[in-house]
Amino acid sequence: MSEISYIPTHSRRSSMKFLSAKLISLAIPVAIGLNVYFVIPKPTEVSKQAWRLLAIFLTTIAGLMLQPVPLGAWSIVCLTVSLVTKIQSFKDAFEGFTNQAIWLMVISFFFSRGFVKTGLGDRMGMYLVRWLGKSTLGLAYGLAIGEALISIVMPSATARAGGVFLPIILSLATASESSPEHRSARKIGAFLIQSQLQSSSSSNALFLTGDPQNMLCMKLAESLRVKVKSLWVTWLKASCIPAISSLMLTPFIIYMIFPPEIKRNPDAPIMAKQKLEQMGHIKRNEWIMMVTMLVVVTLWIFGEWLHISSINAAMVGLSVLLMLDVLSWDDCLSEKSAWDILAWFAVLLGMANQLSALGIVQWLSKCVASFLKSLSVGWHVELLILQCFYFFIHYMFAGQTTHIGALYSAFLSMHLKAKVPGSLSALLLAYNADLFGALTHYSSGQAAIYYGAGYVKLEHFFMLGILMSLINLTIWGLIGALWWKVLGLY
Amino acid sequence: MSEISYIPTHSRRSSMKFLSAKLISLAIPVAIGLNVYFVIPKPTEVSKQAWRLLAIFLTTIAGLMLQPVPLGAWSIVCLTVSLVTKIQSFKDAFEGFTNQAIWLMVISFFFSRGFVKTGLGDRMGMYLVRWLGKSTLGLAYGLAIGEALISIVMPSATARAGGVFLPIILSLATASESSPEHRSARKIGAFLIQSQLQSSSSSNALFLTGDPQNMLCMKLAESLRVKVKSLWVTWLKASCIPAISSLMLTPFIIYMIFPPEIKRNPDAPIMAKQKLEQMGHIKRNEWIMMVTMLVVVTLWIFGEWLHISSINAAMVGLSVLLMLDVLSWDDCLSEKSAWDILAWFAVLLGMANQLSALGIVQWLSKCVASFLKSLSVGWHVELLILQCFYFFIHYMFAGQTTHIGALYSAFLSMHLKAKVPGSLSALLLAYNADLFGALTHYSSGQAAIYYGAGYVKLEHFFMLGILMSLINLTIWGLIGALWWKVLGLY
Repeated sequence: MSEISYIPTHSRRSSMKFLSAKLISLAIPVAIGLNVYFVIPKPTEVSKQAWRLLAIFLTTIAGLMLQPVPLGAWSIVCLTVSLVTKIQSFKDAFEGFTNQAIWLMVISFFFSRGFVKTGLGDRMGMYLVRWLGKSTLGLAYGLAIGEALISIVMPSATARAGGVFLPIILSLATASESSPEHRSARKIGAFLIQSQLQSSSSSNALFLTGDPQNMLCMKLAESLRVKVKSLWVTWLKASCIPAISSLMLTPFIIYMIFPPEIKRNPDAPIMAKQKLEQMGHIKRNEWIMMVTMLVVVTLWIFGEWLHISSINAAMVGLSVLLMLDVLSWDDCLSEKSAWDILAWFAVLLGMANQLSALGIVQWLSKCVASFLKSLSVGWHVELLILQCFYFFIHYMFAGQTTHIGALYSAFLSMHLKAKVPGSLSALLLAYNADLFGALTHYSSGQAAIYYGAGYVKLEHFFMLGILMSLINLTIWGLIGALWWKVLGLY
Repeated sequence: MSEISYIPTHSRRSSMKFLSAKLISLAIPVAIGLNVYFVIPKPTEVSKQAWRLLAIFLTTIAGLMLQPVPLGAWSIVCLTVSLVTKIQSFKDAFEGFTNQAIWLMVISFFFSRGFVKTGLGDRMGMYLVRWLGKSTLGLAYGLAIGEALISIVMPSATARAGGVFLPIILSLATASESSPEHRSARKIGAFLIQSQLQSSSSSNALFLTGDPQNMLCMKLAESLRVKVKSLWVTWLKASCIPAISSLMLTPFIIYMIFPPEIKRNPDAPIMAKQKLEQMGHIKRNEWIMMVTMLVVVTLWIFGEWLHISSINAAMVGLSVLLMLDVLSWDDCLSEKSAWDILAWFAVLLGMANQLSALGIVQWLSKCVASFLKSLSVGWHVELLILQCFYFFIHYMFAGQTTHIGALYSAFLSMHLKAKVPGSLSALLLAYNADLFGALTHYSSGQAAIYYGAGYVKLEHFFMLGILMSLINLTIWGLIGALWWKVLGLY
């Protein structure tokens, strides 16, 4: 079974091939941009500036996929082009750096370092291995189910990824001598990362409180007078069957198409036990790390009641760790992944926001609406087309909230116009937004965090993203459709 | 002579002493903040929010001086307090991250790394040593005069510091085995950094085009109907004698009070010649670095005509270096000083801007005005008081432009109300702003850059800042006053 794998574990290229590949990977994004800019006629409804920004945005995205140079470098180059050509103003272009979600990711990386530095991550990982460590697949299931359970009380997918699961996965990987950006990445690290990310789509969708954006969708629906009765329960009723089916299948599917090199390790639980004994009692810094993270997680859980936002809770935790010298400022500065994510995600977010502000996205959805009108089919087909379009247009968004903010209301009205039942439309669009979070590395906070760990190559990220999206859409589309009929949602 | 030094080269403390010093350095800022917040009665003109922000700001500044924890960590802790207590909103607090000047600094650090990595900085340094290297003081004079000359055409003190002089100084220091944050920092590096920073105050003030802020001041003056005739020449006429006197004295004074350990090195020019021969011809990456920096500097010089801002010029240069792989993205991510400056300067700038927006600064200047009224003295005395106040209130500002934006116009009107001649007032306030740029490490872009290099300890930075400020104010006050009388400015 391990021989069959869509994505080869290692690939070797001669340096000539490598250079020409680099040049092609540079030529394609540039060609796309130039084509949109100069060749494709601009639609009359779209302003010149918006069209040009679209050209640069597509170039950026294509470059993020093909990587002629590393992510951050490419973002800066594209940003520079947009600034020099005066398509974006400096203020607009750098707006992303004032985004809370991005700073939450940055701080999550600092927390991860704290977990690693104090040894707490190691300890938690070893407990998990002692319990489930005989098979890698077992570990993956343990982690996925763990996240689904914790999502009942900890309503931020980004915080869960950066603050809890990435540190544990890093420890597990390190224990198996699997390090990022090495040939050893595929030993276990890359698999666990992808399994966790792809599973998180379903765990986010399982509970209304699984992610703040779920509530945001429901509020937007309310403003269009679509009110779902006894919301929390209805949400769970509708989501449970497809979400749990998807959750149960995801680690196994990833295991098949993106297998870890280490699959069974019968001695692992014994070794973990020995290592835990060697570690001895919990040390001062581990205690501080644990208590701090408990406080932060508690604030993440009860934040809404206490009027403390996720980012503020995270900053309190970081401040405590810095003041007690559990984490030094130099540790933070050395955490390159944090600064990397800050740079490229903020640049991308700035562009995506501008694209929305300039009306490109709205113009695209208008095109879809008039296309649907011309088809004159039943609402089932219209629903399918709209949902698929809503899903795949996420390639043009950095993060989920921006997408929801820009398009949720517009798409809900299109659903209503097509006579799709209101509650069903509102819920499906919200579930959809949870599922597209694992499409690319810039699709959501958690995706960016897992990508930032460096275990999964970008091309694998994109391929698994689209593959798992198709699988998830099929599961939700088939099992869901049946289940919602049973529930009487349509 | 070398034994007499205000600031000891090395200091040793026992670890107990160290811990108690840490606690005191933490207690003082906290006590200041709590006092302002709870004890000192809030003036009625000032809003509650503004007063509370002042308390946190003073705590931040005191902490930046005493350093209970590193700069960046302290900024984050204070920022967290301001966010959790809801004194600042997240958006306002993070506004600094969209500031062009800060990003110019960040990119300057990347350029510095490029100079070092390609070996171009080394080469430039060796040429300078071959010419002037026999004495460290000679080197310092060479650098100071070099900056004064280059400031005629390159109108950005931040860019000059980060793009030209810091890289050269780093190479010179490295050649003498003087590295930051080691005992070897005082060999030559710390001295050259301080000499260059303090000299730059005068070179910025020498020409109207020495820094963009000079022009900003004059524009603000015009809006108050104070028009200086044949501006460029009048500026230079008034500035030349005090600026040149100050420029000639500064390296020597720094040499006396903050001496380098290596003072004479008769063999240095010969060694430099040998090293240049070893280096051989200029290599590919050095060429690219040189040509790129020439383009960037040209854009910095002619930017205004071409409508290209300094930051855009810098980003073009960075993009070229990244695309041609002279600088890798990993180099940028590893450049901790850049991310350090980004974090703490942006936090400080955000607070300072808010302080201004909430009217605290304006309230302080009103207090001064009414104090002056109560004194009923001649305009000479009022001028002196106003200028000193304008200078030292800079402790409350991050960067020069913010200060000018908040206070220049208000202070110019106070001058006019006190019947100080218009042109004199406008010019003096502008010169003043150039001089206070070296007061602290957060006083200006160039100060932050030189501090970021890590050669000069923070306490030394503050002590030299205030000392040299007093000396500069004396030179400008005495020699200047005479000279301006001769010119007939009053």
